[in-house]
Amino acid sequence: MTRAPEMDFEDTQGARLKMALATIRTDIDAAFDELLPVPDDTRAQLVEAMRHAAIGGGKRVRPLLLVATATMLNVSREAAILAGAAVESIHVYSLIHDDLPCMDDDDMRRGRPTVHKAFDEATAVLAGDALHALAFEILTFEGVSADPFVQAELTRCLALASGMGGMAGGQAMDMAADSATYDLHTITRLQQLKTGALLTASVEMGAILARVPPSSRVPLLSYARDIGLAFQIADDLLDHEGDEHKAGKALRKDEDQGKQTFVSLMGADAARSQAKALVEQACGHLSQYGEDAGVLCDLARYIVERDR
Amino acid sequence: MTRAPEMDFEDTQGARLKMALATIRTDIDAAFDELLPVPDDTRAQLVEAMRHAAIGGGKRVRPLLLVATATMLNVSREAAILAGAAVESIHVYSLIHDDLPCMDDDDMRRGRPTVHKAFDEATAVLAGDALHALAFEILTFEGVSADPFVQAELTRCLALASGMGGMAGGQAMDMAADSATYDLHTITRLQQLKTGALLTASVEMGAILARVPPSSRVPLLSYARDIGLAFQIADDLLDHEGDEHKAGKALRKDEDQGKQTFVSLMGADAARSQAKALVEQACGHLSQYGEDAGVLCDLARYIVERDR
Repeated sequence: MTRAPEMDFEDTQGARLKMALATIRTDIDAAFDELLPVPDDTRAQLVEAMRHAAIGGGKRVRPLLLVATATMLNVSREAAILAGAAVESIHVYSLIHDDLPCMDDDDMRRGRPTVHKAFDEATAVLAGDALHALAFEILTFEGVSADPFVQAELTRCLALASGMGGMAGGQAMDMAADSATYDLHTITRLQQLKTGALLTASVEMGAILARVPPSSRVPLLSYARDIGLAFQIADDLLDHEGDEHKAGKALRKDEDQGKQTFVSLMGADAARSQAKALVEQACGHLSQYGEDAGVLCDLARYIVERDR
Repeated sequence: MTRAPEMDFEDTQGARLKMALATIRTDIDAAFDELLPVPDDTRAQLVEAMRHAAIGGGKRVRPLLLVATATMLNVSREAAILAGAAVESIHVYSLIHDDLPCMDDDDMRRGRPTVHKAFDEATAVLAGDALHALAFEILTFEGVSADPFVQAELTRCLALASGMGGMAGGQAMDMAADSATYDLHTITRLQQLKTGALLTASVEMGAILARVPPSSRVPLLSYARDIGLAFQIADDLLDHEGDEHKAGKALRKDEDQGKQTFVSLMGADAARSQAKALVEQACGHLSQYGEDAGVLCDLARYIVERDR
């Protein structure tokens, strides 16, 4: 795939994003390392499994969305990193459970054995559950905010995005896709729940940390919605034409299972155009923030250009 | 087993507790019925599975602990019921996941097929996850408290009690018990995490709703710790000598697996005496509340006398 010049990550925007992605990986790894000390008792395997899943892998798109939004709005980086670890904790738990034999039955994730492969299924279920609880524990830390109003709003936002009205609901629709035939409208709704809700929550939590009132969050949420959709279209494209080695996981599973995706419904070319249009629209929503929105715009472009 | 006169639930205390148990069951069922409307899309099966697990079964000991504590401290019943539904939501999710084939592999629970039997394993994993998120969503409802300080403290309390430092950590220790030999001290620690943490959180959440400051919660938490231990000893006794039909689930699994329990380590008679002594000690901690602590004391006695 040839890249248009403005998509070249060797240029200024590319260097800025590369730095942001590298820094967030280091910071989130350090946060999890501190949040997950291995206890000196028989819980050790549980915590090792949590560390296996949470440390040293992943693009950290959700924490970066949260931290970049918070930084743009002058929130301290330390607080944003902790809140970012909470969102990532939810994301990681969902990956562990989705990879289980009874769900997607995947052996590899982020280039390493999945938790139920490296440990066992029971430990994988439990490690996911413990990361789920950890997310909400983190949100009540003083380091996130000393203001209980902010803590409570972060909790509400993350809980809504994770549950049956968000990620878990989207996953349920995805599982039902084996027996139902979805049109483009329903696939969009499914993806808005399954991946969009948590991406949007990441941006909104940055705004909550900055005490942006709900009425002023509209441009940020519009940005998040557009990149959420672009992210999923890019994922479908990657699943359709990507490199398993680079992706670090099995690809073409949806196709093999005959599931509808944006690519199967729209065709690869139209899907690619749509993703790019969504990204430009997303960046447009942030015009009022000018140069301060640089990382968020770079990240939006990266989302459709990434190869893993 | 013959009952001592003071344990007879046909007397005054018995009637008061019977009423409290019946009322809490009705109220928690009603709360879940309202919290879990079945959506008109392919998430319907997920929500049906959540309802299967959450409605119409269980003794509701945790919600009753919370509501009885809150009522003793003059909190509105409506708020306490909602918070009780949050605690029960965590308890129910843990039962769904514990029953999975890769965990305890149980077919029956509360006299009905477990979720993975009534639906399928993937739905069971996801229904547990969605109930887990629901718990934290509930705690940020205005109906629980309009004060974000209370919402945040409830969230912290429930997250700590559910995660690797509480219920999930205890479950991990329990799983490791297959390969490790535990002494009485370690079994006590295991149970304090696995079941004690959530029982204690139930009482503490009642105190949080009533804005009892941490320094004044000591008697309540001492009560909770004692009945938590008594509850587990009673569970082990039930597992050892109970009636599967009344219990509504398979019994003698620990024994068959050669796991250490309070009964195997202490003997049934000593375990029974210990449970009764703990209950009297628990009630003693509440002396400052006088007659207002009646339901909590009745509940403590019920915990060691129940046959299911």
